[in-house]
Amino acid sequence: MSKLYFRHGAMNSGKSTALLQAAHNYEERSQRVLLTKPAIDTKGSAAIVSRLGVDRDVDFLLTPDLNLRDEFNALCSKIKQESGQGIACLLIDEAQFLTAAQVDQALEIAVLDDVPVLAYGIRTDFQTKGFPGSIRLLEIAHTLEELKTICRCGRKAMFNARKFNGEFIFDGEQVAIDGVDVTYESLCPACYIEEKSTFIEK
Amino acid sequence: MSKLYFRHGAMNSGKSTALLQAAHNYEERSQRVLLTKPAIDTKGSAAIVSRLGVDRDVDFLLTPDLNLRDEFNALCSKIKQESGQGIACLLIDEAQFLTAAQVDQALEIAVLDDVPVLAYGIRTDFQTKGFPGSIRLLEIAHTLEELKTICRCGRKAMFNARKFNGEFIFDGEQVAIDGVDVTYESLCPACYIEEKSTFIEK
Amino acid sequence: MSKLYFRHGAMNSGKSTALLQAAHNYEERSQRVLLTKPAIDTKGSAAIVSRLGVDRDVDFLLTPDLNLRDEFNALCSKIKQESGQGIACLLIDEAQFLTAAQVDQALEIAVLDDVPVLAYGIRTDFQTKGFPGSIRLLEIAHTLEELKTICRCGRKAMFNARKFNGEFIFDGEQVAIDGVDVTYESLCPACYIEEKSTFIEK
Amino acid sequence: MSKLYFRHGAMNSGKSTALLQAAHNYEERSQRVLLTKPAIDTKGSAAIVSRLGVDRDVDFLLTPDLNLRDEFNALCSKIKQESGQGIACLLIDEAQFLTAAQVDQALEIAVLDDVPVLAYGIRTDFQTKGFPGSIRLLEIAHTLEELKTICRCGRKAMFNARKFNGEFIFDGEQVAIDGVDVTYESLCPACYIEEKSTFIEK
Repeated sequence: MSKLYFRHGAMNSGKSTALLQAAHNYEERSQRVLLTKPAIDTKGSAAIVSRLGVDRDVDFLLTPDLNLRDEFNALCSKIKQESGQGIACLLIDEAQFLTAAQVDQALEIAVLDDVPVLAYGIRTDFQTKGFPGSIRLLEIAHTLEELKTICRCGRKAMFNARKFNGEFIFDGEQVAIDGVDVTYESLCPACYIEEKSTFIEK
Repeated sequence: MSKLYFRHGAMNSGKSTALLQAAHNYEERSQRVLLTKPAIDTKGSAAIVSRLGVDRDVDFLLTPDLNLRDEFNALCSKIKQESGQGIACLLIDEAQFLTAAQVDQALEIAVLDDVPVLAYGIRTDFQTKGFPGSIRLLEIAHTLEELKTICRCGRKAMFNARKFNGEFIFDGEQVAIDGVDVTYESLCPACYIEEKSTFIEK
Repeated sequence: MSKLYFRHGAMNSGKSTALLQAAHNYEERSQRVLLTKPAIDTKGSAAIVSRLGVDRDVDFLLTPDLNLRDEFNALCSKIKQESGQGIACLLIDEAQFLTAAQVDQALEIAVLDDVPVLAYGIRTDFQTKGFPGSIRLLEIAHTLEELKTICRCGRKAMFNARKFNGEFIFDGEQVAIDGVDVTYESLCPACYIEEKSTFIEK
Repeated sequence: MSKLYFRHGAMNSGKSTALLQAAHNYEERSQRVLLTKPAIDTKGSAAIVSRLGVDRDVDFLLTPDLNLRDEFNALCSKIKQESGQGIACLLIDEAQFLTAAQVDQALEIAVLDDVPVLAYGIRTDFQTKGFPGSIRLLEIAHTLEELKTICRCGRKAMFNARKFNGEFIFDGEQVAIDGVDVTYESLCPACYIEEKSTFIEK
């Protein structure tokens, strides 16, 4: 019986690197894996981009209306026909952007199709609220594992504070992909609470 | 800097025992702790009841309108005045029944008042949906630790299936405290999915 | 495929309570378990004694010359014949006192006989050196899980400092069961190093 | 109070990648780290080489006679004088090859100098026995974290089986760096036990 893993960590904790390493570990043992991510994350278009300088295209992009299990099994069948090879693992990047239904489908892939699913993502948005995908993963994943990174103060970072033109900002839309104007800084709860109270006072 | 811990586990995984043991560990070292739980859980009235046969009254009950941090700090001040002793830890049983605001207050107790908070609870209800308190704990607790128990099939149990008069039931209110008619059985995802599909077919 | 778990923690972290709770969890689901511990630990003779006030006799005591797997399987066969029931789990208390060979046998019970083995014990002696059983468990257990307790200073305790007539002592035999003269206090590394340097200066 | 972490995993589980990612995480936050490894590992001479294709030189190599804490603090002082910057973290690759004394010194760096030490290494040699460095880390590290990889059978790999010219071999020296003749394959206990019994029968 396979499991659904949620490997969560603040932004810039190395989740994409860990995903690419996990894929590499399977492939070194001649086992085939599939990579996917929600289409909402346009950072690397169809690529999973690690800040260590490694990147790789996903095998399929997930739009919100897609049934993850159907899509996965269709692709598995196609590969099985072409190469005779089964799929040893499904790896999902930016899993916080999955729909709740897609997380349920990921659990079914693990439990009913017996293929392990490794989902990497952040727990919460810039206001410390969960995304639909991360809440569902926190509810039903077999195993919750944390990838750690540090805050500017040296403690463990947990929250993903948003900056607009370099200033911390605590209101706005839930999703704003980091780019030129919008950036994120991973903070520990103490630094987050401090910055938020400074922001409110302004 | 203290931390907020969420020690989650399926029903009957030994959470109350673990809480009472943690309290005992502090007290053996002559450190004083406070115990609380949401008033919604009427199983043991004001007591934390372990299935191993140990029980103990909480220091205060939490109603949904109460500010946990204010209540905690008021009691700390009172004890400090009476005995000169500070509080080394706050322990919360049935933490899934906290309000989201009370979980935020628990984080503040850890981060701003520097007192560790150990919250014990289940992740999800009988329909595998989170409770307000458990979702907020999964979002913001520093550390997520699992207390494990087993399913009837020998695998790790995760879900809390509800039975009414001995039959599995998959619709109803989110909260129904176990008693004579209503009971719960902790199941692994595979057994849960199986029982649910049997229920739907009926 | 079952696993060998090493659940380690400093003295007085609640290992025996956790073991008895795990046994209880199995038995509530009508599954039968076996309990054992090395005969070297004479604290409760043939009983596993929890500081929370619960205790229970082991099913067999382990002397160093005993083959754990042979002993376990012989008892399983006997129970199977008498009651028709298989054994769902083997629980071992004070597992640091196992021989290295017995830990290898415990791994074989998990891997070859497909019965999960839960071994509870401390990592190190009063001089921070491992016991034969704990070193072997740290080397080959599938899963290492920590049961936490606190130091007098509030940090996590890790080391088991020995006291003789109330004074910390840093030389002597590896094994000295706590009783009237000899007691132990679980300390964090900082407090341990401090007490040790005070002792050396004397 | 900082901690000594032992992040262990079978060979080819991605330990060097994880180390380089951790270093990167610090440096993105403008914090300086130091990297070291025992000189015994000649795989990449003075470089930490990740199988994902990233590599980086260590700041100093550790010979067995070196006092790790003295060496670390001397280098910290030099950097402080030159740049005014403190060191936020010490990262150690191939930590199984540390001497037991150097692990004690690593604990002192964490506890007495308040600098976190992240040590990455394998638990056991090709005969499932610990190395001096890994045994000491398993005994005294504050936190034991596992980096997982898979066996050829899909289960979690734990043991590092040695091959000589492609054939599994179960006797020989403890240390033999992988190269042309000698290679390693990470196996789960079941596959390891199977290969070992095949080898003994020959």
